[in-house]
Amino acid sequence: MEISELGEFGLIDHLTKGLTTVNPSTVKGVGDDCAVLRNRDTDILVTTDLLLEGVHFDLTYVPLKHLGYKSAIVNFSDVYAMNGRPKQITVSLGISRRFTVEHIAELFSGIRLACEIYGVDLVGGDTTSSRQGLVISITCIGEAEADKVVRRSGAHDTDLICVSGDLGAAYMGLQLLEREKAASAGMKDFVPKFDGKEYLVERQLKPEARRDVIEALGAAGIVPTAMMDISDGLSSELLHICKQSDAGCRIYEDRIPIDYQTAIMAEELGMNLVTAALNGGEDYELLFTVPLHFHEAIQRIEGVKVIGHITKPSLGCAMITRDGTEIPLRAQGWNPLAEKE
Amino acid sequence: MEISELGEFGLIDHLTKGLTTVNPSTVKGVGDDCAVLRNRDTDILVTTDLLLEGVHFDLTYVPLKHLGYKSAIVNFSDVYAMNGRPKQITVSLGISRRFTVEHIAELFSGIRLACEIYGVDLVGGDTTSSRQGLVISITCIGEAEADKVVRRSGAHDTDLICVSGDLGAAYMGLQLLEREKAASAGMKDFVPKFDGKEYLVERQLKPEARRDVIEALGAAGIVPTAMMDISDGLSSELLHICKQSDAGCRIYEDRIPIDYQTAIMAEELGMNLVTAALNGGEDYELLFTVPLHFHEAIQRIEGVKVIGHITKPSLGCAMITRDGTEIPLRAQGWNPLAEKE
Repeated sequence: MEISELGEFGLIDHLTKGLTTVNPSTVKGVGDDCAVLRNRDTDILVTTDLLLEGVHFDLTYVPLKHLGYKSAIVNFSDVYAMNGRPKQITVSLGISRRFTVEHIAELFSGIRLACEIYGVDLVGGDTTSSRQGLVISITCIGEAEADKVVRRSGAHDTDLICVSGDLGAAYMGLQLLEREKAASAGMKDFVPKFDGKEYLVERQLKPEARRDVIEALGAAGIVPTAMMDISDGLSSELLHICKQSDAGCRIYEDRIPIDYQTAIMAEELGMNLVTAALNGGEDYELLFTVPLHFHEAIQRIEGVKVIGHITKPSLGCAMITRDGTEIPLRAQGWNPLAEKE
Repeated sequence: MEISELGEFGLIDHLTKGLTTVNPSTVKGVGDDCAVLRNRDTDILVTTDLLLEGVHFDLTYVPLKHLGYKSAIVNFSDVYAMNGRPKQITVSLGISRRFTVEHIAELFSGIRLACEIYGVDLVGGDTTSSRQGLVISITCIGEAEADKVVRRSGAHDTDLICVSGDLGAAYMGLQLLEREKAASAGMKDFVPKFDGKEYLVERQLKPEARRDVIEALGAAGIVPTAMMDISDGLSSELLHICKQSDAGCRIYEDRIPIDYQTAIMAEELGMNLVTAALNGGEDYELLFTVPLHFHEAIQRIEGVKVIGHITKPSLGCAMITRDGTEIPLRAQGWNPLAEKE
């Protein structure tokens, strides 16, 4: 079915059919000029992401449902990174004419699945045509107790630096997908080779936000002093925290969590494994700092690892390699404004 | 200066230098994963708009500062249309390589000017490259007293239908700009002819949101039963209100407010004036309904006109022409998904 057959409002009706809301704070969702949210005694968190075809995603190998799921997740991840809980999102889409209603419904089903799993209400958005491929703009509203919001600026000397999960896998997944795309060029019925590398593909195409870690921290009574999610790479994010906290840091190469599939893929591609883990990006893991006295409590939280500590600002930011050398951290993460047109 | 010289964070720093916040509810703006807003006893309103180059604006005749101003205003207008007050916005930009830092600063200066005038805090956003021309996605958060939020669905039989300002001028301004663009094709030092039509150009390039009307209604103790802003044309919006309120309506051709410049331009172009006023769109005026007993109170509000009344749903939606004929209202407003690529 052509989108023009439905028109804007028809398409919105189609996409939001059966959509319900689950949060008491959602007074009014889709269907008016504004979504209405009601709150007391809590902070409202707002975050937004703009995703453009050809810059942020390649539909050659990204299924639309996965794209929708990931588009929502990256916003939820930002809310968790403030120690909040995502509650509502708005979704704006710019759609070029090669997309059908079914395509957009597929994209939307991924967004709705993410909302369902994470308990988030889709409360509004905008839909328009695009001459320029697919445009996805999502804004997420979250809530947090006012005294438990965690910013980037609160890290102190001697705080422990922690990360969840493992790093570099999403980046290696991207390399793998790009390799198979290149291999498939001009071939019919090409079957990409993902055997033994499923984890990498999943980390790239279907990342999750670390709600579990936020809940575990809450249950343990730990409020981090600073926190971010790792979207541009550990190096880049850690430099943000140190800059905004007026601090330095030391992390240890042998403490950086890396999955074995990531290591195998780096070897295959002849890439430096630690560089990939430090700068790969799109991990959507949490990077946070806690006071030293939480050392034991943190070790009891599954999937969280201490990788170093915060220092005085005069010491700068560095990684200690396995052989004891200090290497200054640099932000080599993905720079979306440096992309070629 | 090239944007790539600054990088993403450098550009954001550049664009937000000296930015301050004015609302007590803005606890934390630009510079973290989320903006933090704090509230009590009020409803939070969220609205979002996606604007794409070549679909929503033509940079041949739209100055970037005006574009920024208008991009913000259209969101504020949505918040006022709920009887709310805009408080915060997030701004996401996709920027292609033909834009310089100065260009984007110009665009941003328009957004910031609108924020300053309307008392709104810019609290976040996203910036990325685009292969596809300029992309602007703005989300606006507003506040309203919970018992004073006005939706589209509350209009009742015998309610008066009111509009602010005048209609069709922004559409005629667009026609004028398109005409002068065509006339300038291939000509050097072309000077467009806007004499005596300045109002039309201003309505198209620099619309305002009707905060004054919302304030006047508030001061008069009037809470409309239904309200929308007119972005797609009076016909289309009125049909929305009637559908969502399960009601019909009658409006009177001779009551529709039209500026004389709009009338002159329609004559010059050989267009039907009332059709332009009903379907032109981009007026950003307020369309609302009030109980009959407010008739006198409404007439005392400057710039607001009663154009008809709500009926039982069985009577349908129609306009009574000057000669007494009933013409069914149809939604002929702008359909962004019907645009040609």
